[in-house]
Amino acid sequence: METIAFTRGVPADESFPIEEIIGCAEACLKQHGKTLLQYHPVRGFQPLREALAEQNGVCVDQIMVGNGSIHLFDLLCRVLYEPGDVALVERPTYDRSITTLRSAGYEVHGIDLAPDGIELDAFKTALETYRPRLVYLIPDFQNPSGATMSDEKRRAAVDLAEQHGAQLVIDVPYRPLRYWGDEVPCLSEYANDRLIQLSSFSKLISPGMRVGWMSAPADIVSRVACLAEDTYITPGMLPQGVVHQFLEKGLMEVGIERLKALYAPRLKTILAALDRHMANGSWVRPEGGFFLGLTLPEGVRSADLRQVAPEFGLKLSNGEGFYADGDGSRFVRLPFCALTETQIDDAVERLAQAVAKTRTAS
Amino acid sequence: METIAFTRGVPADESFPIEEIIGCAEACLKQHGKTLLQYHPVRGFQPLREALAEQNGVCVDQIMVGNGSIHLFDLLCRVLYEPGDVALVERPTYDRSITTLRSAGYEVHGIDLAPDGIELDAFKTALETYRPRLVYLIPDFQNPSGATMSDEKRRAAVDLAEQHGAQLVIDVPYRPLRYWGDEVPCLSEYANDRLIQLSSFSKLISPGMRVGWMSAPADIVSRVACLAEDTYITPGMLPQGVVHQFLEKGLMEVGIERLKALYAPRLKTILAALDRHMANGSWVRPEGGFFLGLTLPEGVRSADLRQVAPEFGLKLSNGEGFYADGDGSRFVRLPFCALTETQIDDAVERLAQAVAKTRTAS
Repeated sequence: METIAFTRGVPADESFPIEEIIGCAEACLKQHGKTLLQYHPVRGFQPLREALAEQNGVCVDQIMVGNGSIHLFDLLCRVLYEPGDVALVERPTYDRSITTLRSAGYEVHGIDLAPDGIELDAFKTALETYRPRLVYLIPDFQNPSGATMSDEKRRAAVDLAEQHGAQLVIDVPYRPLRYWGDEVPCLSEYANDRLIQLSSFSKLISPGMRVGWMSAPADIVSRVACLAEDTYITPGMLPQGVVHQFLEKGLMEVGIERLKALYAPRLKTILAALDRHMANGSWVRPEGGFFLGLTLPEGVRSADLRQVAPEFGLKLSNGEGFYADGDGSRFVRLPFCALTETQIDDAVERLAQAVAKTRTAS
Repeated sequence: METIAFTRGVPADESFPIEEIIGCAEACLKQHGKTLLQYHPVRGFQPLREALAEQNGVCVDQIMVGNGSIHLFDLLCRVLYEPGDVALVERPTYDRSITTLRSAGYEVHGIDLAPDGIELDAFKTALETYRPRLVYLIPDFQNPSGATMSDEKRRAAVDLAEQHGAQLVIDVPYRPLRYWGDEVPCLSEYANDRLIQLSSFSKLISPGMRVGWMSAPADIVSRVACLAEDTYITPGMLPQGVVHQFLEKGLMEVGIERLKALYAPRLKTILAALDRHMANGSWVRPEGGFFLGLTLPEGVRSADLRQVAPEFGLKLSNGEGFYADGDGSRFVRLPFCALTETQIDDAVERLAQAVAKTRTAS
């Protein structure tokens, strides 16, 4: 029995537009070779920054492109940190972001997450209690839960953060990957000009390219750029040249449609399989992105399930890692994009068997 | 009058093997596309690690490839640091390395540098006085002085560092670029297996590629890899694929010969121009690399010279930045690789005029 890894929050290998990237690499080196191969100002390749500024309706000095958005987030967290600072995150949230915040020194607290976004009462209480420096949210097809924040909650969350002087940071790498349902306005439409937005091309072109970007107030970009220059001098320029060509040639629109066509059936399959096999669990019903968060039935602990999973040819990730605090003991993240429909069907059936066995054992 | 920047320690734009890089990008994406475009273990592209391990006579688990050697150095410094730690560096040394050490928390002290390497008596005294955690040396064609450590000093420095339990870190990006004179054995030939070596392809292929590497004891590589994974998950993979192809295809040997042919006349030119114009100054006579360190005549301060330089159509860097401590007030770094021979001739003549004017003024 082939082991199925229900752990890898990564794009499908077959999604990579290899031929297009070869073409873009050639084109960008022919056009901009001397610029891309030399030391370069740390904020990134100017034509790419300009394209992103235009796309996001901000000035070019509000855009910085770096080696993946998590590294930009790391630099940002370190630049903004002052001793004693607290950060609020969704509960659950992306485990690496918790690590990044904690490494920079922040005390991290979670705000409970409903399928339509953070609980506003809990958010208000947390803002009053902790007076956080930062609030980090993934409003669209959230990692790890799959939740998407409702329009009302976006407006309210922006207002609350502003009232309490907390810096809102949104991470939106999955936003373009909506497989069905109605678009919700981007949170940036409601925020003031202090909003910080992180995103990347990891889910849209390739993660190995490591091209992430940040839009932020120009003064914050300057401070992050200083730290970045002291850290790595120049970001990886060749991939930035490739991504710029990709946008220039209109390959992004085509690429996103292709990704949707590949991933939508996978999301449909996992939802149907859960409906069929997973009695007593509860889960978000995402309309896009990479992840679906499952809450196990009462009495079944994710840690026990992980122990049992290999018997059923299944690899699961540690659900508790997505919780900065609070009880994540029944949480399991199910990434569905890098598995075929057959694998997903099998994996959910095995998961249900493993849950049944774990429940009996406990 | 065109301003000449005597500040840019960068490869010549005309040195970049653009066509070869295009070919390597295509080849690596065709052969390893799915690996290079996906998330990847943080230590780097396995075939490249293997090639570097073989080249350096170490095991593959002693090699890590990242986004430029300065970023690896940053991670290394942070991993090894314990409160109160001291690092020793050459005086002068690469200014960014001082910044990196200080950011990690180290107190940094310099050891006076002669044209044949650090002063051994001063080194011994510093080891006894400061009991440093780290000793950071650039033994070959040193940045910023151009000094190359003699064979005797290499042996002695290794012994002294070992006796005092200091971790030796050598940075050797310029080593393959010897334009004339006899090769000196690499310091690694005398060191024990705890030596840490940093290098990169920035000076041999392209800095915009951001491919640097470290060889270190496997336990240290593991600790650096952990921090790197928490910081950027995966290094830029496409450039690593390109560099691997470059090595595979035997383009490196050809490339290095081409660089020598380009840069040797530039070094000859700057030495001849200094002999002709620069009375009363003193300077190292490098046999390779990118830099030549000039000590200005008595009574001429580098800071004053920098003020005057623009009048003569010259841009100079801040010499004091290369000194962790001690008096760098008469030091000027002269990078010669990115200037043509005509520019170098002009620049040195202008420099001499600026020196004369500064001297008169003071």
